[in-house]
Amino acid sequence: MLESPLIVVNCKTYVESIGEKALELTKIIEKESDANWAVCPQPCDIRMLSENTKVPLLAQHIDPVEPGSNTGRLLLETMKSAGAQGTLINHSERRLKFSAVDRIVARCKENELKTIICANNPDVSASAAALGPDFVAYEPPELIGGDISVSDAKPELVEKAVEKVKKVDPDVGVLCGAGVKNGEDVKSALDLGTEGVLLASGLVKAENKKEVIKDLESLIR
Amino acid sequence: MLESPLIVVNCKTYVESIGEKALELTKIIEKESDANWAVCPQPCDIRMLSENTKVPLLAQHIDPVEPGSNTGRLLLETMKSAGAQGTLINHSERRLKFSAVDRIVARCKENELKTIICANNPDVSASAAALGPDFVAYEPPELIGGDISVSDAKPELVEKAVEKVKKVDPDVGVLCGAGVKNGEDVKSALDLGTEGVLLASGLVKAENKKEVIKDLESLIR
Amino acid sequence: MLESPLIVVNCKTYVESIGEKALELTKIIEKESDANWAVCPQPCDIRMLSENTKVPLLAQHIDPVEPGSNTGRLLLETMKSAGAQGTLINHSERRLKFSAVDRIVARCKENELKTIICANNPDVSASAAALGPDFVAYEPPELIGGDISVSDAKPELVEKAVEKVKKVDPDVGVLCGAGVKNGEDVKSALDLGTEGVLLASGLVKAENKKEVIKDLESLIR
Amino acid sequence: MLESPLIVVNCKTYVESIGEKALELTKIIEKESDANWAVCPQPCDIRMLSENTKVPLLAQHIDPVEPGSNTGRLLLETMKSAGAQGTLINHSERRLKFSAVDRIVARCKENELKTIICANNPDVSASAAALGPDFVAYEPPELIGGDISVSDAKPELVEKAVEKVKKVDPDVGVLCGAGVKNGEDVKSALDLGTEGVLLASGLVKAENKKEVIKDLESLIR
Repeated sequence: MLESPLIVVNCKTYVESIGEKALELTKIIEKESDANWAVCPQPCDIRMLSENTKVPLLAQHIDPVEPGSNTGRLLLETMKSAGAQGTLINHSERRLKFSAVDRIVARCKENELKTIICANNPDVSASAAALGPDFVAYEPPELIGGDISVSDAKPELVEKAVEKVKKVDPDVGVLCGAGVKNGEDVKSALDLGTEGVLLASGLVKAENKKEVIKDLESLIR
Repeated sequence: MLESPLIVVNCKTYVESIGEKALELTKIIEKESDANWAVCPQPCDIRMLSENTKVPLLAQHIDPVEPGSNTGRLLLETMKSAGAQGTLINHSERRLKFSAVDRIVARCKENELKTIICANNPDVSASAAALGPDFVAYEPPELIGGDISVSDAKPELVEKAVEKVKKVDPDVGVLCGAGVKNGEDVKSALDLGTEGVLLASGLVKAENKKEVIKDLESLIR
Repeated sequence: MLESPLIVVNCKTYVESIGEKALELTKIIEKESDANWAVCPQPCDIRMLSENTKVPLLAQHIDPVEPGSNTGRLLLETMKSAGAQGTLINHSERRLKFSAVDRIVARCKENELKTIICANNPDVSASAAALGPDFVAYEPPELIGGDISVSDAKPELVEKAVEKVKKVDPDVGVLCGAGVKNGEDVKSALDLGTEGVLLASGLVKAENKKEVIKDLESLIR
Repeated sequence: MLESPLIVVNCKTYVESIGEKALELTKIIEKESDANWAVCPQPCDIRMLSENTKVPLLAQHIDPVEPGSNTGRLLLETMKSAGAQGTLINHSERRLKFSAVDRIVARCKENELKTIICANNPDVSASAAALGPDFVAYEPPELIGGDISVSDAKPELVEKAVEKVKKVDPDVGVLCGAGVKNGEDVKSALDLGTEGVLLASGLVKAENKKEVIKDLESLIR
C-alpha cells in the first residue's frame, strides 16, 4: 500500500469531514478512483472508516508515548487497532519536537506502520529523510489552504527538496502539498520528481467530490 | 448525567483498555453498577462505546481549536458526534496553557458538554473553579498510579481544595483522585466533602473488574 | 515599589530596546518621570540596567524550574541576582501552562519577587487572581501593538475584569494593557478601576521618549 | 574560535554558576587552560562574562523569533550584542520543534554565530547534521549528570553517531557529552572520532576547578 504515484487526503478538523461525512468521502474515493489514494481521518472516525471501506487510512498524528499512564494522548497501538495503516508526522499544523519525530518513526517501524514526515522547507526535508521514513512531504506553510499549488508557486524548491532528500536516502519517497486542487497540479508535482501529493480542502470542501477525484487523477501516467 | 456521588474511570493509554477491552470494561460497569459512573475512553474508541453502551462517556482531552484547518487535533464537534458528553481538561498527564483551559471550558459550555478541570493542588483548584467548570478534580501528581489514595495521604489538602473551590464558586463540584482503589477510598473522599473520585489503574488493570466495581461503590450511602 | 498608579513598560524583543538602547530608555524614565514606573528588559540587559539606574525592573518571564540541571531556562535566582524585582507571568506572547503559572507565583512569593499575571479575558483574570499575585494585567491579545487602547475599545470588559478580580481577591491589583499610548489612555484605564497600565511599542518605538513619558503620566491624579 | 579539540562547559541553572560564580569559573578557565574551551552562561550573565574575559561564550538557547513583538523570548540579536558567539540548540533539557531547530541554525548563519545542535541518539545526530550546523553534540539523556561517561557507557553509539554525521556532511563536527568528568573521558571521546566534549556538573560543581581543568585537557595530544 501507499504505492507511487500517491494522493493523500487530509480530513483535518473540517466540519465537512466529521463522522458520516468522512465515511461518505472515503466511499466515493473507494468507488470512483483508479489511482493510489490514502485518507487521513480524525481519530474518532478511523474505526468507522476502516470497518466500512478498504481505502488505506493514515492517522493525522500519533503521540510519542508508550502504552501506559498517559491521558489525552494518541497511542500508536490504539490507532492501529482501529485501522490506521500509517501516520502523518510533524504536519505544519502539528509541529513536533525533533526527538519526538525520531521516536514516532522508530515506533512505527517496530509496529509496521507507514510514515510520512511533513517538512516546511527543503533543508528540513533532507533532515527528515535521515530519520528513515517511508515518505517526506514538503509543504510550504504559507501556501497551505490557498489557491496556488506548491508546484506552481515554488517549483524550484520542490525540485530542491527532491534532490536533497534523495541525496540523503534515495529510498525515501517525496510528496508535496499545499494548494493542490486539480489534475494539472498533480501532474506538475510528479514532473518535478515527487511520488505524489497531499491535499485537503481542495477535495474535502468540494461540492462535486466525484468530479474532483476524477480530475485529480486524470493526468497521472 | 454526572450526578453526585460520581465515579470517573480514566482509560488512559493502557493496553488493558484499548478497543474491545474498553468496550468490555464499560459493559461490565453498565451491567453491574448501581452508582453514577462515567468512562473516559481513548478517542478512537468513543464511537464504539457510545453505540454499544449507555454509560456516560467523557473525552480524556479536547484541543482548544475551532473546526477548520487543523491537523492531528481533537475537535470538540467530532468528539461530541462520536458520543462524548463531556471531557477532562488539563489532566496532569496532559497539562494545558492557562488560556487554553479557559477556551475549552467556554467551547464546552456553548456546545453543552460537561467539564472536569484537573488541578494539581488546592490553589490551582480554586483558580480552575473561577473558570466555571462543572467539576474540579484535585489530583496530586506524585500519588497518581500509586497505592496510597489521596484521601489517606493528604486529607487536609483535599479539604482545603474543597474549601477553596466552594469559596470561589459553590456550584462547582469537587472530585479527587490518585491512588483510589476501593470502597474505603471512595467513602473517605466523600467524607472530606468531595462529590466523587477519579480512578484509572485501580479498575482498568484489575483482574476481577466486577468485584472491584462492587467494592468501589459499596460504601456510598 | 510597584505602587499604584503604575506604568509598566515592556521592552519585548524590539531592536529599539536592546542593550544600550534599553539603558537609555530606562535612564530617561528615571530622569523625567514623576509617577511610578517599572521596566521589563530582556534577560541579557537586566544587570546592566540595574547597575546603572534605580527604576524598578521586572523580568518578562521566569521559567518554572528550580536551580539544577536545566539548560536554556530563565532561573528566578539568576534573574533576581541580576537585579529583577519581579516578573511578568503568562504574557499573551509567552503563554504558560496552568500549573506553571501557579508554580512561578509560589516561587516568587518565597523569594520576595513581585508578580504580574497577564490574562487574555475577564474570566482568566479572575482565575489568575485566585493564585494570589500582586497584580493581574488584562490585555486583549487582538489589541496588542495596535492604535486603539483597551480602555477605549473594550471599557466594559476592563470593568468586568476589575469586578471579577476584586470579587475573588480584593488585594490583587488590576492593570490593563494593549494599545496604550498617551495620557488619555492611562486616565481612562484608571477611571475604569485599574491600578495602572502595561505598554510597549507606544513608548519603546517613540521618537521623542521624554515627551511620551510626560504625556503618559500627565493626567494621573 | 571553537577549534577542535574543543571542551564546552554548560553552566545550566546551577547555583554554583550564577553571576559572580560564573565569572570566577570563566576566569579560571581563561587563566589555567591551554586547550580550546567555550562556556555557556545563563542569559543574564553573558554580558558580564564577555566584558571581563576572552573565553568564547555560547548561549544555552536562542528562541526562533525575529526582533519585534515577542515577550520573554531570547532574541539572537540581543544575545549577540551581549557577547555570545554562538549557541547550543535543542539541548535534551530544552528540546525544540523540528522546524525551530532549522530556523535557529539559519538565523545563526545569517548572523555569523556558531551552532551546536544537541541530539539524543545517532539517528537524530545524522538528521541534525543535514541542517548544516558547525557541530552536532550527541548526548544520551539517561547519562547526563551521571558518573559514567558516554564514551565508556556507549562507545559503539558514539562511533555510530560520528559515522552517520560524517556520511551526511563531513564538514560537521561531532561532540559528545554526558558523564564527562576527567582527562580519560576526553581522550576516549576523541579516540572515538569526536572533535570534543560537552560537560557541566563535572566542572561546575567541582571543588578544585583548576585541577579539574588541568586534568580534563591533560591527555589531549
